Amino acid sequence: MENAMQGEQYAPTGRTVPTRAPQRASYDKDVVHAILDEGWVCHLGFVRGNAPVVLPTIYARVGERLYLHGSTGSRPMRAAGAVGGEEPGMPVCVTVTHVDGVVLARSAFHHSVNYRSVVVHGTAHQVTDPQERRMALDALVDHVVPGRSAQSRPANKKELAATAVVRVDLTEVSAKIRTGGVNDEPEDLDLPHWAGVLPLRKGYEAPLPDEGLADGTELPPHITAVLT
Amino acid sequence: MENAMQGEQYAPTGRTVPTRAPQRASYDKDVVHAILDEGWVCHLGFVRGNAPVVLPTIYARVGERLYLHGSTGSRPMRAAGAVGGEEPGMPVCVTVTHVDGVVLARSAFHHSVNYRSVVVHGTAHQVTDPQERRMALDALVDHVVPGRSAQSRPANKKELAATAVVRVDLTEVSAKIRTGGVNDEPEDLDLPHWAGVLPLRKGYEAPLPDEGLADGTELPPHITAVLT
Repeated sequence: MENAMQGEQYAPTGRTVPTRAPQRASYDKDVVHAILDEGWVCHLGFVRGNAPVVLPTIYARVGERLYLHGSTGSRPMRAAGAVGGEEPGMPVCVTVTHVDGVVLARSAFHHSVNYRSVVVHGTAHQVTDPQERRMALDALVDHVVPGRSAQSRPANKKELAATAVVRVDLTEVSAKIRTGGVNDEPEDLDLPHWAGVLPLRKGYEAPLPDEGLADGTELPPHITAVLT
Repeated sequence: MENAMQGEQYAPTGRTVPTRAPQRASYDKDVVHAILDEGWVCHLGFVRGNAPVVLPTIYARVGERLYLHGSTGSRPMRAAGAVGGEEPGMPVCVTVTHVDGVVLARSAFHHSVNYRSVVVHGTAHQVTDPQERRMALDALVDHVVPGRSAQSRPANKKELAATAVVRVDLTEVSAKIRTGGVNDEPEDLDLPHWAGVLPLRKGYEAPLPDEGLADGTELPPHITAVLT
């Protein structure tokens, strides 16, 4: 990982230094941001009654913060103190994973997966400032389809009141990346088994327009832009 | 959810009955199994020092059990008691999510995601029986590419010794599913914004054969079968 061109780094901690395959870990902010910005579904972990809970949810990154949202009635949002009262924050782990391909080795043991993941350890805090809430909600929509928030009806008072927004600061963060091909043992290279990588398909299929759209409604540029 | 044809169900518990959108929840074993069998990457949650940890990892379902594996040196495997000593088990949450599409509504508030997820609450126990370990490791390979374990070199003694296997029984389990189109408010239907669903692409791109393969090596049927 020696690199004169290395950019700004997150400080490694006991939780973010892996016990194995440390060469796959990165604390580079640009690397972490790129992984976070490519996805929009994370797995949010929190603790409830001494047991872990992991739920999929949408996120957006704005600078060194992640924003998540949910119904004010949902368990993690209530636990994060997002609804009323004092706000101690909730310990969370937010994990984002891109699965890029299956690595098929000649040996069962060396089968692997190409992936890029980011693990964020932190505390979820409610966002109460109306301006920050608006900004975060726009970011959540725009993170999935850039420019979309300006091309839809903004939330009204009732909808805003029903929506909890939490933020998690990016301080204790690491990425883990596996790329490339097959790592078989030298003595296995002549085995007759097919070996290689099956890359996973990415992106969108053709859009399915809502039946209620006016005849002749064309796909707007902010949508065609994500379909490439 | 009334259905005369309803199959066997998991018993709902306080943890598996959602606080919102209960119409999206299912406890049907066939529904749960189908979601689990379509994927092979889960997000494993566990608790470490009162804080949650969420890591992506491979899984396989065999009947009413999930199997996960890892290096004997990895944190979750050690915490699950997979390496030596007494074995109390480790509380875990295993979540599998398929993201099927983005739902773009005329209103920002009604933007949504089509998804199918399964959340398993349970305890990870180490697997020590040699036969069950072999079976589980084959299942982990075959879950990604059916038939692959028979088409690769089985793990040798050293590799087996380096691999921890844990199982999680499927008892406290639920699925959550969002399908279909846009749910806009009636008063928003005449707004000029494009609305509809962007389905996500699934499956594999063309395989990348390992450079060391003998000239003329063809793709075997167990691989072409997953490329459709």
